[in-house]
Amino acid sequence: MAIKAGVIGAAGYAGVELARRLLEHPDFELAAITSDSDAGRPLSELYPAFRGKTDIAFVSHTDAAVHECAVVFLAVPHTAAMAQVPGLLDAGIAAIDLSADYRLKDANVYEQWYGTPHTSPELLERAAFGLPEITRAELERAAADQASGKPALVACAGCYPTATSLAAFPAASAGWTEGVVQVQAISGVTGAGRKSTERTHFCSADGNLEAYGAGTHRHTPEIEQILGCQGRVVFVPHLAPLGRGLLSTVTLQLTETAAQGFSLEQALEHYTEFYRPSPFVQVLPAGVLPRTRDVAGSNGAHVGLAYSESTRTLIAIGAIDNLCKGAAAQAVQCANIVFGLPEDAGLAAMANPV
Amino acid sequence: MAIKAGVIGAAGYAGVELARRLLEHPDFELAAITSDSDAGRPLSELYPAFRGKTDIAFVSHTDAAVHECAVVFLAVPHTAAMAQVPGLLDAGIAAIDLSADYRLKDANVYEQWYGTPHTSPELLERAAFGLPEITRAELERAAADQASGKPALVACAGCYPTATSLAAFPAASAGWTEGVVQVQAISGVTGAGRKSTERTHFCSADGNLEAYGAGTHRHTPEIEQILGCQGRVVFVPHLAPLGRGLLSTVTLQLTETAAQGFSLEQALEHYTEFYRPSPFVQVLPAGVLPRTRDVAGSNGAHVGLAYSESTRTLIAIGAIDNLCKGAAAQAVQCANIVFGLPEDAGLAAMANPV
Amino acid sequence: MAIKAGVIGAAGYAGVELARRLLEHPDFELAAITSDSDAGRPLSELYPAFRGKTDIAFVSHTDAAVHECAVVFLAVPHTAAMAQVPGLLDAGIAAIDLSADYRLKDANVYEQWYGTPHTSPELLERAAFGLPEITRAELERAAADQASGKPALVACAGCYPTATSLAAFPAASAGWTEGVVQVQAISGVTGAGRKSTERTHFCSADGNLEAYGAGTHRHTPEIEQILGCQGRVVFVPHLAPLGRGLLSTVTLQLTETAAQGFSLEQALEHYTEFYRPSPFVQVLPAGVLPRTRDVAGSNGAHVGLAYSESTRTLIAIGAIDNLCKGAAAQAVQCANIVFGLPEDAGLAAMANPV
Amino acid sequence: MAIKAGVIGAAGYAGVELARRLLEHPDFELAAITSDSDAGRPLSELYPAFRGKTDIAFVSHTDAAVHECAVVFLAVPHTAAMAQVPGLLDAGIAAIDLSADYRLKDANVYEQWYGTPHTSPELLERAAFGLPEITRAELERAAADQASGKPALVACAGCYPTATSLAAFPAASAGWTEGVVQVQAISGVTGAGRKSTERTHFCSADGNLEAYGAGTHRHTPEIEQILGCQGRVVFVPHLAPLGRGLLSTVTLQLTETAAQGFSLEQALEHYTEFYRPSPFVQVLPAGVLPRTRDVAGSNGAHVGLAYSESTRTLIAIGAIDNLCKGAAAQAVQCANIVFGLPEDAGLAAMANPV
Repeated sequence: MAIKAGVIGAAGYAGVELARRLLEHPDFELAAITSDSDAGRPLSELYPAFRGKTDIAFVSHTDAAVHECAVVFLAVPHTAAMAQVPGLLDAGIAAIDLSADYRLKDANVYEQWYGTPHTSPELLERAAFGLPEITRAELERAAADQASGKPALVACAGCYPTATSLAAFPAASAGWTEGVVQVQAISGVTGAGRKSTERTHFCSADGNLEAYGAGTHRHTPEIEQILGCQGRVVFVPHLAPLGRGLLSTVTLQLTETAAQGFSLEQALEHYTEFYRPSPFVQVLPAGVLPRTRDVAGSNGAHVGLAYSESTRTLIAIGAIDNLCKGAAAQAVQCANIVFGLPEDAGLAAMANPV
Repeated sequence: MAIKAGVIGAAGYAGVELARRLLEHPDFELAAITSDSDAGRPLSELYPAFRGKTDIAFVSHTDAAVHECAVVFLAVPHTAAMAQVPGLLDAGIAAIDLSADYRLKDANVYEQWYGTPHTSPELLERAAFGLPEITRAELERAAADQASGKPALVACAGCYPTATSLAAFPAASAGWTEGVVQVQAISGVTGAGRKSTERTHFCSADGNLEAYGAGTHRHTPEIEQILGCQGRVVFVPHLAPLGRGLLSTVTLQLTETAAQGFSLEQALEHYTEFYRPSPFVQVLPAGVLPRTRDVAGSNGAHVGLAYSESTRTLIAIGAIDNLCKGAAAQAVQCANIVFGLPEDAGLAAMANPV
Repeated sequence: MAIKAGVIGAAGYAGVELARRLLEHPDFELAAITSDSDAGRPLSELYPAFRGKTDIAFVSHTDAAVHECAVVFLAVPHTAAMAQVPGLLDAGIAAIDLSADYRLKDANVYEQWYGTPHTSPELLERAAFGLPEITRAELERAAADQASGKPALVACAGCYPTATSLAAFPAASAGWTEGVVQVQAISGVTGAGRKSTERTHFCSADGNLEAYGAGTHRHTPEIEQILGCQGRVVFVPHLAPLGRGLLSTVTLQLTETAAQGFSLEQALEHYTEFYRPSPFVQVLPAGVLPRTRDVAGSNGAHVGLAYSESTRTLIAIGAIDNLCKGAAAQAVQCANIVFGLPEDAGLAAMANPV
Repeated sequence: MAIKAGVIGAAGYAGVELARRLLEHPDFELAAITSDSDAGRPLSELYPAFRGKTDIAFVSHTDAAVHECAVVFLAVPHTAAMAQVPGLLDAGIAAIDLSADYRLKDANVYEQWYGTPHTSPELLERAAFGLPEITRAELERAAADQASGKPALVACAGCYPTATSLAAFPAASAGWTEGVVQVQAISGVTGAGRKSTERTHFCSADGNLEAYGAGTHRHTPEIEQILGCQGRVVFVPHLAPLGRGLLSTVTLQLTETAAQGFSLEQALEHYTEFYRPSPFVQVLPAGVLPRTRDVAGSNGAHVGLAYSESTRTLIAIGAIDNLCKGAAAQAVQCANIVFGLPEDAGLAAMANPV
C-alpha cells in the first residue's frame, strides 16, 4: 500500500519537482501539496506540464490533508521549516526538510550565518544529514528509528554542498589534502528560485555570467561541516544562463606525502571504490570531465578529476541537476532509505541524452 | 519475456532517444544499436548520459544482432531506410521506420519531392502511417497482421506533420475549413540533427531566429496527405534557439457555414472529444496556448485554439518535443500498438515541470 | 551645437536603449532621463553597461530638465504618452512617441483596441507615423513644420508592425496581393519589457516556444493601417528564448494577374528598388532568408522572399532588433529626419558579426 | 589619411571581429582580409551582418594587397603566425599578432607548452605584450620604434590571461599575495572558435556547463608570466551556454602582513587608482560584482573584489567579451597605441545595456 506523502511549499521549484517525483513514485502517493498563496488552484494550472497527469490542487499549509501523511517534505525557506518540523514529528510524521534549518549540527554556527536563533536546537542531533553517498550511516539510523515508530527527520544537503562534497569528500576523507579548499561553482537559474526578480529575468540572465555571494554564501559552513575543514573553505558561486545544472570545481592542496607518487588513475580508482555502493554517482575516466547536461533532469551525479602537478593541486569536479540531486530527487532518495525502499525507487530515469 | 528491439542509426539524435526509450521500456529489450562509423564504441562514450545505465555498444548495420530482433526501428535518412526495410520484413522482423520513405502513399509524390525513385513502392500500401491519434485504425490493422505472423511496417510521421496535424486535423476532418492551410512552425535545434554544421553551431543558433525551406520543405506533401488538402498547404518552418521543442501554428479559413455561430468553446469541446481516447494529447482551455517546455522530454502534445473573427480564421497551435512525440517516442508508441502493449508503455514520464 | 534630448520612461528597455543611442549620437545631447520610481539613481546603477560612459541620473517625469529639451522621446505605456504629449508640444518641444497613442489615425479604432477614449484626437492628424522607409513623406512634412517652429509629433511604429511592413509593404502597395494577410511573428523576450513576471522569468522563457495574443494583439490594427487592409490581417505573435530579435513571416496571396509569370527575381528587384533610398534595409538574394542575429543591436532590417507556386503565396520575411529598428533606434532615425540630420546619424553601427 | 590595415585569418571569429572594428575605425582602413579557403567570397556572404556595410571579399594569405598594408593583424593559430610575422616585419609592416606565438618571453616555455620549437625566438624580446593596462610601457616603446621606422610587433594577450590579469595584477604587483593563484574562469562558446564540432554544436553547449583543459590549458604559463608567479597558477577554464563573455574568478592568498587590517574599500581604491589611466576598465564598488553582459560587444572590462576573512583570501573577478577585450578589440587598442592614435579610437561603443 502506498505511503502517503505531502509537500509543504509545493509551488516553488524544488517543491514542484518533489510533487513530480512523488507522482511518478511506485511506493509513495502524493497526498497533499501546500501553498498558502495558491490554495485551491490545481497544480497543473501553475505548471502545465502536469496537465493530464494529476488533478491535485494546492491546499493551505495547515490543511488537514497534511496530517494524514506518513511523510512530509518541506520545501520552504529556512525558519519556515523549523516552525513546522517539531509539530510534524510530534504528530508522528517523518519530516524530510530541504531547507537549511537542520543541516548545521551547531546551533551557534546556524545563528551566525542565518542571523536568527535556532528554535529547536534539540532536534539537531536527531536530524540525519541527507547526502546518502556520504552520510548513509546517519540515514540508516533514521530508518531504524522510523521502523521502530520514531519519525525520522532528515536535513537534506544543499545543492552546492552536494555537488562539492561528491567531488571532494573521497579525497578529503582519505587524508590526502590540507590547507584551504577552493570551491568555485556555477549554477543554472532554477537555483535562484521561482520568484521573478531582476536577476532571474530572462534578459538579465541570458548571455550573462556573474559571481554572487563571493565568500559570504550560506552554503560555506555546510561544506566545511561535511568536509571537516572549518574555516578553511573559500566558496564562490556563479550564475550562468541555463535552467537546470550545477557544476562545482573544487581545488584541493595535496599534502606532501599524498603528492609523492600521486597518480590520477589511482585517485580515480579510490573514487570508484568509494562510490561503488552508490547507484547515482558515476566516476569518469581520466581525461573526461563532467557535463551538467548528462545529469540534468535526473538524480545522477558525475564526478571527474584532474591534477596540476606543479602546484600539487587536485582538481575535483562534480556535476548535478540542482533541483534533482541537489534538492528534490535527493530528498526522495533519502526518504526511500528512511522508509526501507530501494534507494532508487522512482528515481531511475536518466537525463535526456541530448 | 522481453521483445528484442534494435535501432538502426542509433548514433543520431532520434536514434539515441529511441535507445533511451527502449532501455527504460518494460516490454522491449534494447538488443542492438547500429552505427557504421561508431561500431565498437559504447553508447555511453558518445552520449555520457548513459553512463551507469547500460554497457551496450554500437555494432555495424549488418551485424547479426539486428536479425535476432523482433522489431527494428530505423532512424536513418530517407533512401537508407528503404534499402533495408524489405529485407527486414522478409526476415520476419517488424520495421518501425522514422524516415520519410514509406510516409507518402503515392510513389510519384515521393519521387517529386525527394528526387529519387521509390525502390519498394509495393510496400507503400502495407505501411501503416504512424500518428496514432489520427491513424489508429491503420496501426491496429498492422497489429492484427503482426499478431498473425506478418511483420508490421510503420511509417512514423515527421516532426512538423505531427504537431501540425494534431493541431489541425480535428477541424479539417470535421469539414469546417476551406482554402489554403497556413502552417508556420518553429523547431528547436535538435531538429537539425547531430551533424555539426554552420547552422547548428551554438554561435549561429543562439540568439537567432530564421526561417528555412520556406515553401519547399519536404514535410509539405506529408501534411497535405494527412489533412487531405493536396496542393493547398503553405509551410514555413523556422529555427529558434532551444534544443527540444516544436510549435506549429496553423491558420485555417472557416467555411461560411462553419463560421456562422462559431464558438471557441464548442470547437474546444470537439477537440477534447476527438482526443478523449488519446492519453498523450491535452486540449487546453480557451485563453490558454501551448508551451513547448510543458511537453519537452515527454511524448505529450498540447493543443490550443484561438479565433480571429474578422477574418473567419481558426488558429490551431500544437506543441511537441520534436525528438519524442515528433520522432522516437511516437515510434515506440506505434510499436506498442503494433505489439499489443499498453499504448503508453515506457512513455508515461512527464516533462520537467520547470 | 548639440540638440538637447530627453527620454521620458528611461528605465524600461526601450527607454534605456534610447538613452544609449542618444549618448552615442553626434548631434543630440542626452539631457534628461526620467523614471518616477528611480529618480535620483544613476543610470549606470540600474544598467551597469553605462559605467564609465555617463554619470547621468534619473529625474522625475515632471523635472524642469525635461522642459529644457528641444526634443523628448516618450518610452511610456499607452495613455501615459497622450497625457504628456500635448503639454510638450505646447511648450515648443518636439515629441517622438514610442507608445501606441498616436499611431492609429482613427480615434475610434484606438478606443476599440485599447479600451479607452483618446484624449487628444485632434493631434492624430498632425502625428507623422514613424516608419521612415514607408512614411518618409509624413516625416518630411513634420521636418518642415519643425523647421518653421511648429514642433513635430512622431508616432513611432510598433516592433511587430515595423518588421511586418518592411517585409510586406512593397508587395502590398504594388497591388500584387489580395485576401487575408497572415502574419506569424516571433519575438525575443526584451519585447515583453523589463518587468519581472512569470513569463519573463528565465526558467519559463528558456527552452520554450509559445504563441500569445493570437488574433487579439493590439498591433493588428496598426499593421492593417500601414498595409491598407482593414479587417484582413491575422496576426499571431510568438515568444522564443532570445533577448533581442524579431522575425515576421508574412504570407500574402497573389492576385491571379500577379501570379501569372511571377518571378522571385523580379519581385526581389522591385524590393531592392523600393529600398534603394533606405540605408537600413537589406533585401537578400533569392535563396537567402533573414536571420535576426545579423541585425541584433543595430538599426538594420533584413528582408527576404520565397514563393509557394502551388498556392500562389508570396512569403515575405523581415528581421529586426525589436528594441532598435523596432523601437529606440528607429525613433532616433525619425528624430534625425525631423531635425534635418543625416538619417543614420548615431545609428551606423552594425550588429555583432557573430 | 587612413592607415591601411589587413587581417590575416579573417574568416574566424576573432578575425571577423577585427574586420568589423577596422571597418568602423576612423583612422584605419580595412584594406585586405585573407582566408585561403574562402578567397573570392565576399565577407558579407559568410557573415551577413556585413551586408550593406562593405563589399570587401577575402583574398588568399599571400595576396599582394596584404603587402600594401601598414599594419597587419594575424588571427591565425599558433605556428601559422610565426610563419608570417618575420616576413611582414622585414617588409616594413607592423604585425599585431593575436596568436600565442610571441607571448611567452622564453622560447623554452613556448616549446614545452606548445610542443614545437619556436622558429623566430630572436623576435621574442622585440615583441611588446599586448595588454595595455598592464604593459603600457612595452607598447609605448613599440610605438616609438614604429614612429622611427622600425615596424612594431605586438603579441596580444590571450582571452583568459586578459580577464585574469585585469582582476589579479593590481593585487599581485602590490606584493599583497603569496602562494598558489587559483584561476577559475568561464567562457562563452565563441571562445571555442568558428569550427563546427561536437562541443560547439548548439545541442551540446546549450543547457550545459563543463570544465576543460583543467590544469593543462596553454594560457597557464601566460598568466604566470604576467603575474610573475611561475609554476604557481592553477587554471581551470569552463564552457557555459552563451556566445560572448568571459568571467575569471581569481582567488589570491594574502600575506599575513597584507591581511592585517585589510580593508576591501582600500583595496578597491588601490584598484581604482591603478586603472585611472585606463578608459576601458571599470572597478566596481564594494558589494557589486561584474556581469559579462555589461561588457559584451565592447572593449570594456569590469573588475570587482570580495574578501574571505577566515581564509585570508582575496577574490578578484574580471569580466570581458572574449572576442573584444579578449582578442580583436584589444588588438585594435594596441594598434592605436602603436600608431599614436587615441587609445579608444574606434572602440568607444558600449555594450548593449540590455
